[in-house]
Amino acid sequence: MIIMKKDAKPKEIQHVIDEVKKYGLRADVSRGQFRTVIGLVGDELKIPFAHLAALPGVKEARMVETPYKLINREYNDLSAEGESYTIKVGNVEIGDGEPVFIAGPCAVETRQQLMETAEQAREAGAHILRGGVFKPRTSVHSFQGLGSAGRDEAEEALGWLREAGRQFNMPVLTEVRGENQVDLVAEYVDILQIGSRNMYDQDLLGAVARKDKPVLFKRHFGASIEEFLCFAEYIAAEGNKDIILCERGIVPVGKGKSFTRYTLDLAAVPVVQRETYLPIIVDPSHATGRRDLISSMSLAAVAAGASGLMIETHHNPEEALVDAQQMVTPAELKDIIDACRRISRETTASR
Amino acid sequence: MIIMKKDAKPKEIQHVIDEVKKYGLRADVSRGQFRTVIGLVGDELKIPFAHLAALPGVKEARMVETPYKLINREYNDLSAEGESYTIKVGNVEIGDGEPVFIAGPCAVETRQQLMETAEQAREAGAHILRGGVFKPRTSVHSFQGLGSAGRDEAEEALGWLREAGRQFNMPVLTEVRGENQVDLVAEYVDILQIGSRNMYDQDLLGAVARKDKPVLFKRHFGASIEEFLCFAEYIAAEGNKDIILCERGIVPVGKGKSFTRYTLDLAAVPVVQRETYLPIIVDPSHATGRRDLISSMSLAAVAAGASGLMIETHHNPEEALVDAQQMVTPAELKDIIDACRRISRETTASR
Amino acid sequence: MIIMKKDAKPKEIQHVIDEVKKYGLRADVSRGQFRTVIGLVGDELKIPFAHLAALPGVKEARMVETPYKLINREYNDLSAEGESYTIKVGNVEIGDGEPVFIAGPCAVETRQQLMETAEQAREAGAHILRGGVFKPRTSVHSFQGLGSAGRDEAEEALGWLREAGRQFNMPVLTEVRGENQVDLVAEYVDILQIGSRNMYDQDLLGAVARKDKPVLFKRHFGASIEEFLCFAEYIAAEGNKDIILCERGIVPVGKGKSFTRYTLDLAAVPVVQRETYLPIIVDPSHATGRRDLISSMSLAAVAAGASGLMIETHHNPEEALVDAQQMVTPAELKDIIDACRRISRETTASR
Amino acid sequence: MIIMKKDAKPKEIQHVIDEVKKYGLRADVSRGQFRTVIGLVGDELKIPFAHLAALPGVKEARMVETPYKLINREYNDLSAEGESYTIKVGNVEIGDGEPVFIAGPCAVETRQQLMETAEQAREAGAHILRGGVFKPRTSVHSFQGLGSAGRDEAEEALGWLREAGRQFNMPVLTEVRGENQVDLVAEYVDILQIGSRNMYDQDLLGAVARKDKPVLFKRHFGASIEEFLCFAEYIAAEGNKDIILCERGIVPVGKGKSFTRYTLDLAAVPVVQRETYLPIIVDPSHATGRRDLISSMSLAAVAAGASGLMIETHHNPEEALVDAQQMVTPAELKDIIDACRRISRETTASR
Repeated sequence: MIIMKKDAKPKEIQHVIDEVKKYGLRADVSRGQFRTVIGLVGDELKIPFAHLAALPGVKEARMVETPYKLINREYNDLSAEGESYTIKVGNVEIGDGEPVFIAGPCAVETRQQLMETAEQAREAGAHILRGGVFKPRTSVHSFQGLGSAGRDEAEEALGWLREAGRQFNMPVLTEVRGENQVDLVAEYVDILQIGSRNMYDQDLLGAVARKDKPVLFKRHFGASIEEFLCFAEYIAAEGNKDIILCERGIVPVGKGKSFTRYTLDLAAVPVVQRETYLPIIVDPSHATGRRDLISSMSLAAVAAGASGLMIETHHNPEEALVDAQQMVTPAELKDIIDACRRISRETTASR
Repeated sequence: MIIMKKDAKPKEIQHVIDEVKKYGLRADVSRGQFRTVIGLVGDELKIPFAHLAALPGVKEARMVETPYKLINREYNDLSAEGESYTIKVGNVEIGDGEPVFIAGPCAVETRQQLMETAEQAREAGAHILRGGVFKPRTSVHSFQGLGSAGRDEAEEALGWLREAGRQFNMPVLTEVRGENQVDLVAEYVDILQIGSRNMYDQDLLGAVARKDKPVLFKRHFGASIEEFLCFAEYIAAEGNKDIILCERGIVPVGKGKSFTRYTLDLAAVPVVQRETYLPIIVDPSHATGRRDLISSMSLAAVAAGASGLMIETHHNPEEALVDAQQMVTPAELKDIIDACRRISRETTASR
Repeated sequence: MIIMKKDAKPKEIQHVIDEVKKYGLRADVSRGQFRTVIGLVGDELKIPFAHLAALPGVKEARMVETPYKLINREYNDLSAEGESYTIKVGNVEIGDGEPVFIAGPCAVETRQQLMETAEQAREAGAHILRGGVFKPRTSVHSFQGLGSAGRDEAEEALGWLREAGRQFNMPVLTEVRGENQVDLVAEYVDILQIGSRNMYDQDLLGAVARKDKPVLFKRHFGASIEEFLCFAEYIAAEGNKDIILCERGIVPVGKGKSFTRYTLDLAAVPVVQRETYLPIIVDPSHATGRRDLISSMSLAAVAAGASGLMIETHHNPEEALVDAQQMVTPAELKDIIDACRRISRETTASR
Repeated sequence: MIIMKKDAKPKEIQHVIDEVKKYGLRADVSRGQFRTVIGLVGDELKIPFAHLAALPGVKEARMVETPYKLINREYNDLSAEGESYTIKVGNVEIGDGEPVFIAGPCAVETRQQLMETAEQAREAGAHILRGGVFKPRTSVHSFQGLGSAGRDEAEEALGWLREAGRQFNMPVLTEVRGENQVDLVAEYVDILQIGSRNMYDQDLLGAVARKDKPVLFKRHFGASIEEFLCFAEYIAAEGNKDIILCERGIVPVGKGKSFTRYTLDLAAVPVVQRETYLPIIVDPSHATGRRDLISSMSLAAVAAGASGLMIETHHNPEEALVDAQQMVTPAELKDIIDACRRISRETTASR
């Protein structure tokens, strides 16, 4: 990390960048309100920091020990605890204190299903519309989403998503499962999601990051928080700072019944907020896999300080092709959103 | 499970109990407001249910499939979701809707430390005083609590605990680590704690349960919820119904840094409330091992519906012999308790 | 699964395939020595099995319950325990009883490094040469393999691999990390590897499978055996039957030091052999991360019945850019191979 | 750790011991062939090592960083890799290179069952007889072993065990589940077992260790190797050096079916042999829970260097009250023992 002096000239900054490249690393430039900081992408052991520290305009040059440097609070000039970074998508702001609600069906099934769910979710108070077109599945024999049927089917489903978003004034979000889907999906949606199963897939992360749209990045169900942040760094290393982290549960421990599909790790919320500048939301639907637990886990997530929630919603859950047992109705969604807002006010007041 | 008719006579009930014993099982009698239910301790496959169903006064006789039968909501005549079972200790009620706060130092160190902490914790709003006399430790070379030094030291430390409880009007609680400590500890305290490391220790569980005092029962950090409930059943099988479950975190998954000592599994709270009649509290101190995360995890626990919190508190955390990095001051405790109460009110209103 | 009669005519088989397609599924045809079996790719609930069973030439039509059907022993006409399926690559046979040894450096670094290591590994008894060109890494700041530097660098490194393989008469193997690398890599190597981090990446699996070359498929370090087999089924569903499974360790459990990078799950070897027709090899290098444990874990793997071993080997481990602490020298490799062969003979004799 | 000079006088050694006690620690004296070493039980931070180093007869005084000091190879004068410590029980030696076989039923059921199984296991080549009298069970409603029925039943079952051992010339071993069973069990058996569920139960460990009989100490299924060794240190801290470690599988990771009850961690074998002087055996019966996998996992354990195996054996597995699905017949046991001996010879030759 190279911290430039307050009055460093553009020429001096460029000179530092050129020097960094000489040693085989890339430079990531972060221009904060008070200072410019240059992050290094690559192996810092190759850099003679004493040499860089002596260059004109440089205030300080030092190695950063953690494997995620670009998403560090300090590097992003957000050293005080209260400060936060806000990601704007359309008229929605994520990370500004008010919890954001992402709702919609697990899988896009029909135009009518999507339009009805979108309208009712909007009325319930949701801000962003989600819907899966390419579904990652454990079994090749399960329904893989309309997108997997072919290019035309994918475009049709993505088109419905875009249409519903425009009609009900909600940014839209869908998952990208493979590199060859990135271009297509980016044409239609506002936020690109990397699902839990693809968290470790660094080439996909790079391809998605380069689209310069906000990325919703889900933790793998077998990953530590450190690993989660290391792979978020792959997105930041492409120059894309708009990463929304998402905690969605990790594999249960122990013998015998666990009663929930995964174990929701809510401490990840304050941990990530102390380690990085990134907002983090929570997905209680996949974490629990149980409609009857979504309300209490939503309240707990907001009380823990989450910047938002992603809740699978279906206008008629019983008919859903995927995850029927964990989707809530728009009416239930409304109760959850209202309660979360009250909890959020009390939590914020307590800080 | 044998459900007696509303108007079953005592003689008829006794006859069923005698029949059960004939087949090598024990009978646990639960007299509810509306009906008497007889639970079976032992292998139900040995019981000819058709024969029992035909006895006078019997309404229904059937096998219970789950391995925890005595702590089931249904068996305890608490079938509706809202109903709850309340455990009374002194003037404190656990499970009645208002969260209960248990505070005090990890280890009892000196009389002065305990009295000061107790007084300040009481002023902060805590209801129950905790303090470790026999400390379970991973290393035999670490401080094992004053109780491990000998009988006299144990009695002295337990005496301070009882004295502090009486002076500041708080029931007191301490951990029992081995069978040979049960008699002694039960003389001095109001609630006996089984620690996480001893969760699987069925003989200790039996010995503690037979003291007929409320038992605070902590989940092992490697146990599924099903295992946790199965071992709680060992306590209930001794006829002791006053079991307070405690979620205190499970081992983290994945490679690399986890940032918290354990992973707090807050979904255990609503799961346990649906499966059993037992109240469940949360211990954010051991779960996180980090003073800076205790407030947010406490709020989240209350939002998830926990019946209380156990928070390690020390009048001067820096001087603590054990767990210094995770203990809060009485002033911090007060802020947490006040915020939790506000969250609890909102959460209750949302139901 | 539809089992055709011994004397079913090609026209009858085609008719069944056409019927299957009508219901929206794909048909996978397995022509065994004694019978033809038609597997179904997709949701079997959509199929009216009674209707299919009545078609001419059909002996039996029934649902297969497991989520991996195409890799089942039974479906592949290998129902008896002793029978095995052999994958041929050049003059090497994997799965025929004799353990196969795959050796080479973690990462291809220079032509000279590769040629020297290949020559010495060949002399030590290795059959197949491995070398990483695209390295998956937890940190974006670590060395990602020569291939990540650009197309030219990737081709150069892949070229060395092909050259070394030809010169020392060894099929070669390298890892594919992203969909956009598949075409390029498939031009140069004989076996395509899917690494542990990409196990869940179903789009990559499909792209690799369609190259019709044998696939070395590594278990994710957080995956159950069932998940591992479900994702192997994604490869088989593309019609590629030559899948070599690889056990390489799973995340350790518990608090505190684990002493090895991962926990090698050797029971996966006989389990997989009972569940599927696929050969399974073991990678003790990544599993342990410790040079001093590779020999004993190699012997154990062979004693458990593994069809081969993949052992990271470097002509000069101290100089390696990646995984220096876990690579063995060619001399150590020779000792391991010789000992494994003796163990293999004794193990085979014991069956 | 205080290393005395070769020619240190007994008076000098005693003086060091007295000094250690002054600081509130206990001294453990290890008299090796070449030197006497004094280990410290307690918190070494309290010890002024410079002061001790200056005492007459002291060669070196320094802190040991690992939490298990008394079971370290170095402290026990077994610094070279090949050297081993042998535990003698009757005419059996554990740790001398030849694998030792422990066999017998999961639970002692009847005198006849035990005598038949013992006789046939002896003929098959087993050295030590096992049989459970106090069975730890997850459900209080399951059969808990004859010992749990009462003192008389316990004595009867323990008596059969002793009788069978004498008649067929095998030392006998059984599990102790609670502190109050220790005295009784120690009267009847040669080796006391601490089961997996009780690994963390430090008071039970102390009580068992003080009986001065060899202790078979099983790893908890949720414990890291470091934790396992830390709790073995509790036994050594009572002055009992004869600890036989036992690897019996850890909880599986990941979602979905694991196919085995636990994951056998065979790398624990060489790891423990490098870290401590203790012999380690393997229990493939509980690890796999599957009769059909016991042979291959036994061979693998011996190839990994295990000092022995504990294999549940029943003269008629179908009739067993506990663990019927994982017990082998005496005939199967014989095949396993014979094959293991051949593997052991090859493995030893390879070192």
